[in-house]
Amino acid sequence: MTVKAYGAYAGNLPLESMDITRRVPGEHDVQIEIAYCGVCHSDIHTVRAEWAGTLYPCVPGHEIVGRVSAVGACVSGFKMGDLVGVGCIVDSCKHCEECDAGLENYCDHMVGTYNGPTKDAPGHTLGGYSQRIVVHERYVLRIRHPEAQLAAVAPLLCAGITTYSPLRHWKVGPGHTVGVVGIGGLGHMGIKLAHAMGAHVVAITTSESKREAALKLGANETVVSRNANEMASYAKRFDFILNTVAAPHDLDALFNLLKRDGTMALVGAPATPHPSPQVFNLITKRRSLAGSMIGGIPETQEMLDFCAQHGIVADIEMIRANEINTAYERMLKSDVRYRFVIDCGSLQAG
Amino acid sequence: MTVKAYGAYAGNLPLESMDITRRVPGEHDVQIEIAYCGVCHSDIHTVRAEWAGTLYPCVPGHEIVGRVSAVGACVSGFKMGDLVGVGCIVDSCKHCEECDAGLENYCDHMVGTYNGPTKDAPGHTLGGYSQRIVVHERYVLRIRHPEAQLAAVAPLLCAGITTYSPLRHWKVGPGHTVGVVGIGGLGHMGIKLAHAMGAHVVAITTSESKREAALKLGANETVVSRNANEMASYAKRFDFILNTVAAPHDLDALFNLLKRDGTMALVGAPATPHPSPQVFNLITKRRSLAGSMIGGIPETQEMLDFCAQHGIVADIEMIRANEINTAYERMLKSDVRYRFVIDCGSLQAG
Repeated sequence: MTVKAYGAYAGNLPLESMDITRRVPGEHDVQIEIAYCGVCHSDIHTVRAEWAGTLYPCVPGHEIVGRVSAVGACVSGFKMGDLVGVGCIVDSCKHCEECDAGLENYCDHMVGTYNGPTKDAPGHTLGGYSQRIVVHERYVLRIRHPEAQLAAVAPLLCAGITTYSPLRHWKVGPGHTVGVVGIGGLGHMGIKLAHAMGAHVVAITTSESKREAALKLGANETVVSRNANEMASYAKRFDFILNTVAAPHDLDALFNLLKRDGTMALVGAPATPHPSPQVFNLITKRRSLAGSMIGGIPETQEMLDFCAQHGIVADIEMIRANEINTAYERMLKSDVRYRFVIDCGSLQAG
Repeated sequence: MTVKAYGAYAGNLPLESMDITRRVPGEHDVQIEIAYCGVCHSDIHTVRAEWAGTLYPCVPGHEIVGRVSAVGACVSGFKMGDLVGVGCIVDSCKHCEECDAGLENYCDHMVGTYNGPTKDAPGHTLGGYSQRIVVHERYVLRIRHPEAQLAAVAPLLCAGITTYSPLRHWKVGPGHTVGVVGIGGLGHMGIKLAHAMGAHVVAITTSESKREAALKLGANETVVSRNANEMASYAKRFDFILNTVAAPHDLDALFNLLKRDGTMALVGAPATPHPSPQVFNLITKRRSLAGSMIGGIPETQEMLDFCAQHGIVADIEMIRANEINTAYERMLKSDVRYRFVIDCGSLQAG
């Protein structure tokens, strides 16, 4: 089956319209007509070969929402017409300790929604900047939001779960003070989610100009990290810090904000390392530096249901597929509040 | 009250015999005739002013054991003749969240056994390389080991609790595989304690020559970290790593040994930072890098009782006070298995 997509033939070329093929659904597969696909920073890193190992043609996109158009004979959980989503994962080994625990995101053989190994042509997975995708039912999520919110649900499939999972894992809730560092695609979801979980949320940003926006997203307070006095006034006040900033930055200034036994979880991996954190800052208050990567499939469903229940979606700006190259340039200037979403209906026009 | 001690008048001078004064016991104080005092690497750093802020004269020593020779009117927990110990802490604010939780080690106003602020002359605390010490009863520990083991109990007061506390905090026990990095004063205790807690213990050392000794201490297996193939064979096998090495070293090679959700706890703070750890290593398995500093008073008592119950003491080499400068030189060459302990009876001779 040939469908329209948007992708690149090399790292130094812009994205363009292309035809790709999708497999005929196998007995455990769900075929999805993609309505919208969110645009994640990882898409840029991959399609431009800023990380090692990009395979071409490259079709990015792992924040996919749409409607089921066919199901395999053994699929019981989904039927034609269901509203569904697909996130960062389309396959895994299905039998290791991680998969058994519903933590497919930590499976050594996790297959990404794009640029991952597959038997399908062309030998690597092609993502959601396309009209249709075929995915094993295990990796398909049910969407319970009203259909009118569908486009704004798309970013939950990566930005949502990437921030939800660490907040849950480190048991954020009422009585906790939580710092969210960076107010972008990930951070704006982190603020909304931590707020909905009942925590006291402090947004930490480098930009004076983002204070008001952070409060509107649900932050109780804001701190401008360039202001040393302001940072000092928050010393030892946070139970947990969700750090969404992938660019290398000073972690020590943030550790100082954690209480004894506090954890700072990083969800972005910088291309070059952060300045090495002072061990003294960890030891003297038994603090931890941790990492977290997206989330497992059951937790992704839990997150979607939590968001539906609390009326949470991403703040988005809709674009047509042929606006993607311009959108990338704007993302690199942080000129988006807070996530671009492609209207995949626009792919037909090429 | 004047007593004999061993200390230094400046960072560039050797330690020598000196007279110091101890306060008359207040109503909550316990006066202790010191029998033995362990020699910790922190003693060297402090007395030689390798860390900032050393005050002189400096009398090190925070692994103190001895016998009660007087108690204040309000002391109910100790009486004349009791075998007791004093570790790294002789005071704290006694009313903060940390003190209330029995985590005096994390109190912002924790007073170290030496080089800490005090109203007593000379204005800073003087440690256990001395004949006698007077300490508030809250910071005095009961020793239930046989008296014949007293000298070998001394190092438990710092090396013991520094390793016991993180092993307990991260819930090490049967079914866990635990790596202990570095086989010195701290590491040899970490191996003994993790073994007694029921964990499968893997000692990680740079020295081929330490393999046999590690097995004798209770390690089930040993890994030489310079051997990349050997390290690779332990990838993703450890639930927890207790890292006792204070010198800057490659943390990434160790992170690779942790399972998903594993933690590496550092108990030594290097003078210059470790090479910055790769965030990727944390994120892809939700690993944590943590720090831990000694332990609280209730946990120190728990550790001493645990050791008494399991027959655990340190491996020591006894020295006379006037051998301390030579002992320091040997420690800097790792030429001690595994802790020097000063026979404080030798102080009388000067």
